[in-house]
Amino acid sequence: MPELRQNMATKEWVIIATERAKRPEDFAKGVEPKGPLPEFVETCPFCPGNEGKTPPEISRIAGGPKGWKVRVIPNKFAALSTEGERAMRFDGVNRSMTGVGIHEVIIESPSHSRNVGLLSDDEARDLYNVYLQRYVAIRDDPRVELVIIFRNHGSAAGTSLEHPHSQVIGVPLVPTHIRSRMEEAMRFFDDVGECVFCRMLADELRAKERLVIETEHFVSFVPYAAASPFHTWVLPRRHMAGFDKVTPAELEDLATHMRDILKKLHIGLNDPSLNYVIRSVPEHWENMPFFHWYVSIVPRLTKAAGFELGSGMYINIALPEASAKFLREVKI
Amino acid sequence: MPELRQNMATKEWVIIATERAKRPEDFAKGVEPKGPLPEFVETCPFCPGNEGKTPPEISRIAGGPKGWKVRVIPNKFAALSTEGERAMRFDGVNRSMTGVGIHEVIIESPSHSRNVGLLSDDEARDLYNVYLQRYVAIRDDPRVELVIIFRNHGSAAGTSLEHPHSQVIGVPLVPTHIRSRMEEAMRFFDDVGECVFCRMLADELRAKERLVIETEHFVSFVPYAAASPFHTWVLPRRHMAGFDKVTPAELEDLATHMRDILKKLHIGLNDPSLNYVIRSVPEHWENMPFFHWYVSIVPRLTKAAGFELGSGMYINIALPEASAKFLREVKI
Repeated sequence: MPELRQNMATKEWVIIATERAKRPEDFAKGVEPKGPLPEFVETCPFCPGNEGKTPPEISRIAGGPKGWKVRVIPNKFAALSTEGERAMRFDGVNRSMTGVGIHEVIIESPSHSRNVGLLSDDEARDLYNVYLQRYVAIRDDPRVELVIIFRNHGSAAGTSLEHPHSQVIGVPLVPTHIRSRMEEAMRFFDDVGECVFCRMLADELRAKERLVIETEHFVSFVPYAAASPFHTWVLPRRHMAGFDKVTPAELEDLATHMRDILKKLHIGLNDPSLNYVIRSVPEHWENMPFFHWYVSIVPRLTKAAGFELGSGMYINIALPEASAKFLREVKI
Repeated sequence: MPELRQNMATKEWVIIATERAKRPEDFAKGVEPKGPLPEFVETCPFCPGNEGKTPPEISRIAGGPKGWKVRVIPNKFAALSTEGERAMRFDGVNRSMTGVGIHEVIIESPSHSRNVGLLSDDEARDLYNVYLQRYVAIRDDPRVELVIIFRNHGSAAGTSLEHPHSQVIGVPLVPTHIRSRMEEAMRFFDDVGECVFCRMLADELRAKERLVIETEHFVSFVPYAAASPFHTWVLPRRHMAGFDKVTPAELEDLATHMRDILKKLHIGLNDPSLNYVIRSVPEHWENMPFFHWYVSIVPRLTKAAGFELGSGMYINIALPEASAKFLREVKI
């Protein structure tokens, strides 16, 4: 019997379609191998020696045989422009805003082949330090209302450049989707008197069956109403609305915790395409008692189609408990 | 300079990324040809002669050399079960509902190769008559709150079976996404005193630059804040909240109007993968003054990635006015 499940934090319903269910290991079979990538590609603008082909560097972590370990640059094909001011315009029923904002690329390694799931502890730590540093810097731009840090891995996840890189976009408004998630979290707080994410975390720790990894400061689990196979949330144990509230010790734990989940996905599911995104609050909301930042990881093993488009509901063909058990058991 | 645009009906913001913009004709180049499909495939469960391989038929339009023109069957791998009753369950923070509902498949033609954009007038009319008939029948199931009629064409749009077919799902609750769109439309009506879709239609007819096709009863246009390249809305000129309010003359016009847009996409963009969905109201809302049913067509020419996942905003790399002009000029 299929089941509908609701994620209490987002209020989104998902159909857990048991009739179509695959075994976790079957998902690995559909994954196109990305093959071993070369360590260096002469024409790749992100490879060492081609630093001059990128827009001027914003920052770097220096060191290593190539002179740098991580580089931050403006996105050459930026979705938003750093020039100009925020200005909203009304033309009848049409509303628009100048496309100002920030769009940066974080080159994660000089190595073209450094897989997202196979970073060393040091490399992971460097990357998450850069995430935090860029988050704070971009949040402080007076035109930016929300900072989105995300990673696209593999072509099914929308990557065009294979050299390992993350992206950061600072948008000049609060998107409807984010506003509505804030409202849902606020409503839960008003109704129940606690952060819905703190409550969910406590319930998952008690139930255990959807847990993936527990470390000192973070817990990862496949949400009860996971939208797709192996969809995973990584939550800090301590209540914090904004990512910028993370301590150095927490950030270090997050870096290796994330790397370990990505390694489990890499090994267990044959290096699937995936996205991950840090879901934090809009500016000024970082001390709110009702929201809790987290990382959402979405392996791209199935495709959203007309039903998802028309209903906003997802059909998940993997039982969340089975996805979690599979990931727990992958040896890294 | 990029621009952010808001769709006033859905309140969703989109980034129109002019720096990344492609010319309309460039989108056709990335489309993998689906090749000419065979007229008949012996192993295809939807091909004539294999009627016994599908679950028992619900209805058909009889006639033609194969004995039927359209068949309606239960989905063999249904996302929801026709057995059982609606029952909501609370377990701490976890909310679930029995997965009851309806999931049907509409086999559009006996021909395995009948492309979605190349139906004859008669075939299109038959199909839309079946859409309406199934909409009404499924809406009347006491467990169903919302009916979604949709079409997935091509593998990038999530199809696994290539024989031309549409699907209908009746869900036992109103998804959050739909509820929030109803609320936005209601709010506009309360603020401005008219249906936001009627207003948008009037504005598009005046502006002209985003129109695709105008027929007696329907108007299609690329929305001002189109989420992706060639995203097209098809609206009835007459205000109707529910799809079931359509007259026979309107339905006939819709059938050929839709076929003509799909033919333009087929010819102009090299038969791209696409989804379309009829966006109607939840049950009992069919007479509401603030919502207006429509068909949304989404060619799948780009991929949603981490930014879309994290922000709920889309980055559209085609200017809506350029998409519309291109489609207007494709000769069918």
